Amino acid sequence: MPEQSTCAPQPARTFSGSEKQALYDVIYARRDVRNEFKPDPIDEAALMRVLNAAHAAPSVGLSQPWNYILIRDQAVRGQVKEAFARANDEACAMFAEEKRSAYAALKLEGIEKAPLNICVTCDRTRGGEVVLGRAHNRDLDLYSTVCSVQNMWLAARAEGIGIGWVSIYHDADLRQILNVPEHVEIVAYLCVGYVDALFEKPELAARGWADIMDLGAVVMQETWNA
Amino acid sequence: MPEQSTCAPQPARTFSGSEKQALYDVIYARRDVRNEFKPDPIDEAALMRVLNAAHAAPSVGLSQPWNYILIRDQAVRGQVKEAFARANDEACAMFAEEKRSAYAALKLEGIEKAPLNICVTCDRTRGGEVVLGRAHNRDLDLYSTVCSVQNMWLAARAEGIGIGWVSIYHDADLRQILNVPEHVEIVAYLCVGYVDALFEKPELAARGWADIMDLGAVVMQETWNA
Repeated sequence: MPEQSTCAPQPARTFSGSEKQALYDVIYARRDVRNEFKPDPIDEAALMRVLNAAHAAPSVGLSQPWNYILIRDQAVRGQVKEAFARANDEACAMFAEEKRSAYAALKLEGIEKAPLNICVTCDRTRGGEVVLGRAHNRDLDLYSTVCSVQNMWLAARAEGIGIGWVSIYHDADLRQILNVPEHVEIVAYLCVGYVDALFEKPELAARGWADIMDLGAVVMQETWNA
Repeated sequence: MPEQSTCAPQPARTFSGSEKQALYDVIYARRDVRNEFKPDPIDEAALMRVLNAAHAAPSVGLSQPWNYILIRDQAVRGQVKEAFARANDEACAMFAEEKRSAYAALKLEGIEKAPLNICVTCDRTRGGEVVLGRAHNRDLDLYSTVCSVQNMWLAARAEGIGIGWVSIYHDADLRQILNVPEHVEIVAYLCVGYVDALFEKPELAARGWADIMDLGAVVMQETWNA
């Protein structure tokens, strides 16, 4: 039996103006990093803080379906880089001809430049046959895993560590390189390294690839009313 | 043409020890809230800060595929509550008989108790036919939307606002109630309200429903090696 004290709500921590500002500053200073990684190895204590923050994410039915595969081996990262390069050539060819040279000029990964890669996976079987909250919406475990990635991203940023999410690869390639079994989904492949310079706005906006939308354009009242 | 200054990395914001601690404190103090909502309406300026933080999430190809439907209407929330109740009865029946009474005793939503609900959606067509980073992994837009939810959750917590993610409903029910079109995916249905008391650990752990795993159990080196 859990102790009574743990089974009742307790007065909640409140946050001062400067604490709130620190959180907002981290949120707005976070970038998807491709090229600004420094080669310095990640401090182990900082890495543990970042991973613990990831592990403190919400998860459906408290299933904690994530795993974090830490990849430092150059040969493994070399194989991932090759898998990226093949897929990126295919992706480039999918764009309309007039966008291809702009696409090809973008650097979209730091797989070998960053000293650490982290593959974040979701074990679709964790928590057993029936997981509280997944009965009607099977993908909630994937969504939990993404919450963990975002916690990791913010914690890393506060530690001076940049993260770049690579999504250009064939799932089968990465699965084979990293020996990921069938029942486990690869959710995110992250490049991780210290940064001391970053773009002031999202790099794709800074480079004119896409524009930032106004918040007002994405908020609706009561029902969908586009 | 973007200005030159926006097209080069600038010295990155660094975070002090107390700023880092504020972020970690928010991350660890965040809860999935079901019952602790107070009826007070959400301050408009605080809500805008929270929505702006959500809108500052990373998104694949800077596609910003999310929308935030703000639901305050009692009749709409009543319909959502009914949809939840039907699905929750079905979910309860899926558990082994010995777990059903424990399941039935859990409060799993605050749809009517919280003064605000937010439905977070993902427009699968946003950004056009080919979105940078989605060519090989089509669900990256859904994952971007979840990053936005997690930013929202943390910002809300810092503002003294609790969020509870409801995932027990039939997609078709919610889609009909909220008039969500085919090409838009419902990613999260959130109950939102001020809180001044919270469980000290995740409620499902406090109530003995599930245990928190050790971080060491979910970290792997170089490849999957369970």
